[in-house]
Amino acid sequence: MSAPAVVGLDVGGTTTKALVVAADGTVVHQENRATAHAADPVPGLAAELDRLTAVAAAQGLAVVGAGVVTPGLIDEATGTVRYASNLGWRDVPLRAALQDRSAVPVTTGHDVRAAGLAEQLLGAARGVDDVLLVTIGTGIAAALVGGGRALTGGTGAAGEIGHAPVRPGGEVCPCGQRGCLEVYASGAGVARRYETRTGRARSAAGVVGGLDTDPVAREVWADATSALADALVTATLLLDPSVVVLGGGLAAAAADLLEPVQAGLSAGLTWREPPPVALTRLGSLAGCLGAAAMAMASAGRDVELAGWTAVPAR
Amino acid sequence: MSAPAVVGLDVGGTTTKALVVAADGTVVHQENRATAHAADPVPGLAAELDRLTAVAAAQGLAVVGAGVVTPGLIDEATGTVRYASNLGWRDVPLRAALQDRSAVPVTTGHDVRAAGLAEQLLGAARGVDDVLLVTIGTGIAAALVGGGRALTGGTGAAGEIGHAPVRPGGEVCPCGQRGCLEVYASGAGVARRYETRTGRARSAAGVVGGLDTDPVAREVWADATSALADALVTATLLLDPSVVVLGGGLAAAAADLLEPVQAGLSAGLTWREPPPVALTRLGSLAGCLGAAAMAMASAGRDVELAGWTAVPAR
Repeated sequence: MSAPAVVGLDVGGTTTKALVVAADGTVVHQENRATAHAADPVPGLAAELDRLTAVAAAQGLAVVGAGVVTPGLIDEATGTVRYASNLGWRDVPLRAALQDRSAVPVTTGHDVRAAGLAEQLLGAARGVDDVLLVTIGTGIAAALVGGGRALTGGTGAAGEIGHAPVRPGGEVCPCGQRGCLEVYASGAGVARRYETRTGRARSAAGVVGGLDTDPVAREVWADATSALADALVTATLLLDPSVVVLGGGLAAAAADLLEPVQAGLSAGLTWREPPPVALTRLGSLAGCLGAAAMAMASAGRDVELAGWTAVPAR
Repeated sequence: MSAPAVVGLDVGGTTTKALVVAADGTVVHQENRATAHAADPVPGLAAELDRLTAVAAAQGLAVVGAGVVTPGLIDEATGTVRYASNLGWRDVPLRAALQDRSAVPVTTGHDVRAAGLAEQLLGAARGVDDVLLVTIGTGIAAALVGGGRALTGGTGAAGEIGHAPVRPGGEVCPCGQRGCLEVYASGAGVARRYETRTGRARSAAGVVGGLDTDPVAREVWADATSALADALVTATLLLDPSVVVLGGGLAAAAADLLEPVQAGLSAGLTWREPPPVALTRLGSLAGCLGAAAMAMASAGRDVELAGWTAVPAR
């Protein structure tokens, strides 16, 4: 009899990441592919699940469940993606449609919430019941864990910290509002603000790379970390997390991100200690690992899940 | 055999409110007293519980539990009030000390969270699983209910929305920071800002009373409701509540509070509907009713509690 495994699929605007994870938490297969932007995404994803099940079988593993996570507004009860702008999806009944075409039980969820689950299970928030994970990539979103449970909100839209008005009356956001956190602190925002000031296109990573030599880079980055710290002050006051985890692509800035954010959070709180702020330990695989963990839990294999340890990103 | 009842006690900085509530939810006794600021608050509160138990007995009711709620930072697991500035308390083991001196089972909790529970059970958020209650009195605090459960945070300090930096670099708050929500929108903040501009002392209620005739009152109140709306935009994006309830003393401003806050919240959200915003239906009794409800639940009488209906404030 084959040993059990699960598939995790993290469908992003640009890249779809896939993992096959054995019951003991070992990642036995990992791949990234360009996301196919088909009119109906379901057949392609179902084929992907079949292919990954075959990959597992070739390694002597039987897939007992698949977790598929996406960005956007998600109805967790029905597994419907109500709206995902980066994917161009609207009202896709993802779980039901995939389940119709798949031989394995399918679980669906939200990418950032899945990353929060993974950080809580395996990463920088391991074993902590009150967690705020903020992923800083092209945009900014958060996963909230309160009292050990993921908070999804009344309409599945909790965690949209990227559009918090941290600078009222400030610069215009693509969303139409002014002064949103993403204007200043997202990858897209940092790149745009640098280009506006210099006329030179540079990625957010490039801006971080220029901190030692480029005063404009320093100014743009200081605005980013200051805006992020202010948003974390508000989120800390509201939610009182025991740890704040910073993930997403900009977490690669490491100390250049962590240190000013810690300092700003500390300075913004008078009568309470700031929570510790940590960088993700799972990197860009957090969402996909969370999807796999959801599948494992959904298959009733909580015992195995409890034994998962930090999985090195391959 | 006597019919069962519970006692609710809401210990505030100025006033301590007490209720005796029969198992069917009927308020059979209500009183407000000046809070005694004793070095050790426990003997006075224990005597108050004894007296209320006697009041109940005189009406043929047997008290099966008491709920006592306070402001401050509370360790919910142990029932210890770690710090309550308005009461001058630090590290008071409230539940254990009261239980030692009381013949009835004692439950303790946080005043605003208790008010949130009451609104969810009996009031403006009845039966809703994701609720944000914001109480606007001398200060501003929030109770968060997510997925049907009260969110307390990692250190029992969740809900401190009053010090969210809604106006970065703005006016100085008594807490030492700048631009906190309370600076603009609390009762104390509204009164202080009015007096700074006019040299005339006026309560926040007095400022609201002058909206038709006094341009300074209009300006100060517009700043208050705008700051509150911005804080609710951020809280809505983070938490996605199904309803926002406005309580506390300033809820008496009714439409003068509700309408500008609804308009500001709506204007600050682009790509999602705003949640409905409602005024408290329980008024200043919300915390005390929540304390009584906690006692009823703690006594294992969830069946009775489910039958409680909106209790008119007496």
